[in-house]
Amino acid sequence: MSKGAPTLEDVARVAGVSRATVSRVVNGTRNVDPELQETVRSAIEQTGYTPNRVARSLVTRRTGTVALVISGAGGGSDVFTDPFFGRVTAGVVDFLRAQRVHPVLMLADSDHARTEVVEFLRQGSADGALLVTTHSADPLPARLVEAGVPAVLYARPGRPMPVSYVDMDHRAGGRMAADHLVAAGRTNIATISGPLDVPASQDRLAGFRDAMARHGFPYVPTAEGGFTAESGGAAMERLLAEYPDVDAVFAANDLMAQAAVYLLQAHGLRIPDDVAVIGFDDSSPALACRPQLTTVRQPVEDMAAAMAYLLLESLEKPGQRPKSVIFEPELVVRASA
Amino acid sequence: MSKGAPTLEDVARVAGVSRATVSRVVNGTRNVDPELQETVRSAIEQTGYTPNRVARSLVTRRTGTVALVISGAGGGSDVFTDPFFGRVTAGVVDFLRAQRVHPVLMLADSDHARTEVVEFLRQGSADGALLVTTHSADPLPARLVEAGVPAVLYARPGRPMPVSYVDMDHRAGGRMAADHLVAAGRTNIATISGPLDVPASQDRLAGFRDAMARHGFPYVPTAEGGFTAESGGAAMERLLAEYPDVDAVFAANDLMAQAAVYLLQAHGLRIPDDVAVIGFDDSSPALACRPQLTTVRQPVEDMAAAMAYLLLESLEKPGQRPKSVIFEPELVVRASA
Repeated sequence: MSKGAPTLEDVARVAGVSRATVSRVVNGTRNVDPELQETVRSAIEQTGYTPNRVARSLVTRRTGTVALVISGAGGGSDVFTDPFFGRVTAGVVDFLRAQRVHPVLMLADSDHARTEVVEFLRQGSADGALLVTTHSADPLPARLVEAGVPAVLYARPGRPMPVSYVDMDHRAGGRMAADHLVAAGRTNIATISGPLDVPASQDRLAGFRDAMARHGFPYVPTAEGGFTAESGGAAMERLLAEYPDVDAVFAANDLMAQAAVYLLQAHGLRIPDDVAVIGFDDSSPALACRPQLTTVRQPVEDMAAAMAYLLLESLEKPGQRPKSVIFEPELVVRASA
Repeated sequence: MSKGAPTLEDVARVAGVSRATVSRVVNGTRNVDPELQETVRSAIEQTGYTPNRVARSLVTRRTGTVALVISGAGGGSDVFTDPFFGRVTAGVVDFLRAQRVHPVLMLADSDHARTEVVEFLRQGSADGALLVTTHSADPLPARLVEAGVPAVLYARPGRPMPVSYVDMDHRAGGRMAADHLVAAGRTNIATISGPLDVPASQDRLAGFRDAMARHGFPYVPTAEGGFTAESGGAAMERLLAEYPDVDAVFAANDLMAQAAVYLLQAHGLRIPDDVAVIGFDDSSPALACRPQLTTVRQPVEDMAAAMAYLLLESLEKPGQRPKSVIFEPELVVRASA
């Protein structure tokens, strides 16, 4: 075997064609005779030639990578240990790998980091962005749109802008939780919301309250949490202090629901006998909790895959108008409610 | 504002210098007069010129990305919802972002996928690989070494090869668990090991057994698990059926320890009164479990950051001999033992 890596010239010599023909086959130019293509491909195999992706991307202007950006106010890299983001990553990787595209992980938790993400994409280091943002005031979606970077959001943007996104019907999810608790005969029902600057939190709470009102409960005691276990336990503590006869709680994600279960148990209350608890997401804490959580399923993996699909589609057919894909929730009944 | 993106020529015109001078400044060539550099930089700012990273990487042969590869036999993208990999990702991202380097996530769970990873790196689509492999028979480390790709492993390779790695003293961790249970007066001590084709599992078990033998317990009932909650519960069920008077269990990770706690509780046993349980890792299930888990802490984030450091160092100074960095475990005492 030769020491140096095989070159385009080596392939051309073996195939008995010009360097330009090899180049056209390698770069996927369409108007090349199929038989000639076959000859070149077989020569590529014989020589072990590997097209240089960097050089090739100068021609195709495609890197074969997309940025998977987690954005929001603060938080840092801890976010990667949140089961929600693990599911987003799993869905994105699952879809992209079949397309031979790979995600570059980026964290945009400061102005400096957001500028770097925009520059990275403007410079063509990745072909587009999949953006999971956790706060409606996040300036990154608008900056990407202004920079003309192909982007798809995991949830609808905080204010309307021309960008594609996937989302789910969070209001319907809140409604399902209310219907289930009322049907079970609960009458002192409270809720732990997510952070109220997050559209998904607002929607889950609004859907829950609307349904409760339709069932004849105009006032729902509410404590705001931050989607973390710590904040869920603290919110449950506040609710319990103010409403000691609470008999049901809807928490806006599973991490907070699990923490609420443990806090209630620490106060000697039985779940679901004394207090029924419903979570949201159907992520790993729902199964790890004892009793296991009744929860509103968010099809995160499917939504993440759809987000990746929309981005690749917009790369193939630039100039299309933005699209949205909205998923439906599903109530998963287990032991906690 | 002009429609087209500003070019190198625009910068040269504004700065009143040649295109070649701008190019030398952009590409960081050293022998450029500092005053001239300043003029060019200010012209870059005025024009809003963004150097094309792809074109630049043809010169520097660096992409500013490294591959973060999760490799092993099967499993698929579910691995991203494992808290361990979330911590690896957090540690890698935390270290790399300060260096303006970004990880490309790749999953190598089949021969086909492994070939794609090797090709991706050989083609220069990323500058090197951070490899987390879960099985000692995984052929990927050897293939990367053979391909001459800069790579650092999260744990020592299954068989000796010239590659850098970070690891921890898993034997010492197993020893700590045994010492703690014996000191607490437990006498019917069993263990749930990890998969025995994983070096880390072998070491934790060997360290545990050695220490038990030194304490006068030559035989330790052992059930093999697969590092998942399901396998941990099943292993505990087998141990309990064969050794109903078991009074302590060391599980080789927290997910299995948590499942063991829940299975024992389902059999009416109290933790730690009837059975003490120790986990390994100190990841999120250790805190989510009730009672919270006593566990052997693996400093995953620090180890992942060190892995990234070793890779960037080897990119800066190619040709150095492989390095290893070994971390020490720490016993974190909580309520379960």
